[in-house]
Amino acid sequence: MPKERLAAFSDGVIAILITIMVLELKVPHGDDWAALAAAWPVFLAYVLSFIYLAIYWNNHHHMIHTLHRVDGLILWANMHLLFWLSLVPFSTGWISETHFAHAPTALYGVSLLMPAIAYYLLQLAIVRVEGRDGALAHALGRDVKGKISPVLYLAGIACAFVLPWVSYSLYVAVALMWLVPDRRIERIEKG
Amino acid sequence: MPKERLAAFSDGVIAILITIMVLELKVPHGDDWAALAAAWPVFLAYVLSFIYLAIYWNNHHHMIHTLHRVDGLILWANMHLLFWLSLVPFSTGWISETHFAHAPTALYGVSLLMPAIAYYLLQLAIVRVEGRDGALAHALGRDVKGKISPVLYLAGIACAFVLPWVSYSLYVAVALMWLVPDRRIERIEKG
Amino acid sequence: MPKERLAAFSDGVIAILITIMVLELKVPHGDDWAALAAAWPVFLAYVLSFIYLAIYWNNHHHMIHTLHRVDGLILWANMHLLFWLSLVPFSTGWISETHFAHAPTALYGVSLLMPAIAYYLLQLAIVRVEGRDGALAHALGRDVKGKISPVLYLAGIACAFVLPWVSYSLYVAVALMWLVPDRRIERIEKG
Amino acid sequence: MPKERLAAFSDGVIAILITIMVLELKVPHGDDWAALAAAWPVFLAYVLSFIYLAIYWNNHHHMIHTLHRVDGLILWANMHLLFWLSLVPFSTGWISETHFAHAPTALYGVSLLMPAIAYYLLQLAIVRVEGRDGALAHALGRDVKGKISPVLYLAGIACAFVLPWVSYSLYVAVALMWLVPDRRIERIEKG
Repeated sequence: MPKERLAAFSDGVIAILITIMVLELKVPHGDDWAALAAAWPVFLAYVLSFIYLAIYWNNHHHMIHTLHRVDGLILWANMHLLFWLSLVPFSTGWISETHFAHAPTALYGVSLLMPAIAYYLLQLAIVRVEGRDGALAHALGRDVKGKISPVLYLAGIACAFVLPWVSYSLYVAVALMWLVPDRRIERIEKG
Repeated sequence: MPKERLAAFSDGVIAILITIMVLELKVPHGDDWAALAAAWPVFLAYVLSFIYLAIYWNNHHHMIHTLHRVDGLILWANMHLLFWLSLVPFSTGWISETHFAHAPTALYGVSLLMPAIAYYLLQLAIVRVEGRDGALAHALGRDVKGKISPVLYLAGIACAFVLPWVSYSLYVAVALMWLVPDRRIERIEKG
Repeated sequence: MPKERLAAFSDGVIAILITIMVLELKVPHGDDWAALAAAWPVFLAYVLSFIYLAIYWNNHHHMIHTLHRVDGLILWANMHLLFWLSLVPFSTGWISETHFAHAPTALYGVSLLMPAIAYYLLQLAIVRVEGRDGALAHALGRDVKGKISPVLYLAGIACAFVLPWVSYSLYVAVALMWLVPDRRIERIEKG
Repeated sequence: MPKERLAAFSDGVIAILITIMVLELKVPHGDDWAALAAAWPVFLAYVLSFIYLAIYWNNHHHMIHTLHRVDGLILWANMHLLFWLSLVPFSTGWISETHFAHAPTALYGVSLLMPAIAYYLLQLAIVRVEGRDGALAHALGRDVKGKISPVLYLAGIACAFVLPWVSYSLYVAVALMWLVPDRRIERIEKG
């Protein structure tokens, strides 16, 4: 079973998710700058979620590249990841329409935590097929970033009930941490 | 005529269908957990339909992989399958907005039955080209799952008018039955 | 310049157009069969436009397959075709929401006529590159179907102001005429 | 890291953006020609933005074709370009709903200026990898069109506050200037 179709389908879903979020950016009511300014929370939320989805596409891109064969478990682990990613536009819409209220901020953290868990499970499914000596297993090493991220998401979810701006600082921090493409895997591809 | 473009077009349509359903998940009115909880029927319906579309993508993926050449009949049988799949977001929207009422539950069953029939016709179109000795014909064998599914959908449609929850139990049961990728075809690919 | 990316982009646009039309199929207000029945004009219009877009994808698929190289004129002729196809969901929405009124029926005919003209121009752009001895030029021959279709669309547009049902009979007739994949080109691919 | 997946993802996003704009073309309220005529500003805005996105796809297509390898910086420079392109449907919606008012006309200019800057940065990222002797660096030469466009966009933004129709003349002029595919790169591909 070729990995190309798995990559193409994932690309398609992530490309659609990134652009579907644009639909949340509703055209301002009014034709002056004040009307446009009212859209700033939606715009900020859109930028953050765009970066998150771009990071997933980027890392997914690298991970699939190390893959030699695809089995049923990998297919379903990938579908599971796409499922949680597909909920990001929903939580993005909720935080932006409520101007970053408590419950939506916590849910947004959950919508970032779940794909992180799904991504981890997908890595396990790949290592199971490729073997502990495979490129990915070797590259992951201690996987520091992969272990810190869920902790920071959980901290962000907890803070949402008290200080939402702390939650967003944490969500932005995780994004910045991942914004650099995964050097560990990139190194192997070159080596 | 290469099969790659058929696969790519089908991937595109199914990827869009899966993500269009997210648009049904409308942002809650209100910024508390009660507002979010009101979205649970939509969420449940979305999960079930996501799994159904993922199953179709997965099995379609396997089936096209066994294919050597594509003729006009296969192209149209595939379009026919995509047509019925494209109605799943519609029926999903109706059951979720009516909180799983009688008529929508029956229509949802119909929207699962029609792609099953279309998938069967696509298999016939492929066996017609590949021959009764082809990989797919051999793999299908008695095709137990393919014959049980429509019966269970019909039972679900009948139950919808009396006990909708029985219908959903049946729809979930069929999904679970198919969730395992098609071992029959997978076996051949390896053999 | 490889033709694969031209094919992939066109596939993407047509796949999205076909599925965007589903969004016009709004979830019925009410949970009984009467509410569903009110959606029949939208459903009928959707089926007809789905078949038209599927025919274009199918014939486009065949035409690009005969192609050896792509130049700037072919790229823009293809974009021009995609532009007119992208208006089909709009005209489909108008006929279905107005229950097939006079002006919308005429506009629907225009929205079928324009892609037909664009498709003809794309063929000219390809023949210009491939030469009059190329596979497509040879295959087109007298191109009877390509010449009859615009005449029937024009007749349909004219009838729209008097008898809309005659217009739809003509639109359906053209669809049936094209539903058969283009034997002329298919013959060459085999020969 | 193969460039094909970068091209496929970009194709997907641009294809979706072009078709999402169709959703702005709302079905007219009413079934006569007057109702349709009220949609003309939306239609005109749609045509202009369609042409702009088509130009970007076309030039992107040429640029990626000259590429030999992809690094992290190119991936992110490409994402940055897609981000700004994804806002074009938003600004298109605003100018069309306000019938080309002052502030929306200026914002539309900004939404054309930002992708132009992002495209320039993407070129720098590619030249950095391919070297100053690479095909793209050689092809760009003095890059007259790339330097004139931002100046014309800025002039259009300035005029928006006084004479919006001058702004649109400038936006249309830039589109016409780019409508011709990039001969400089095309020449190299042939040479």
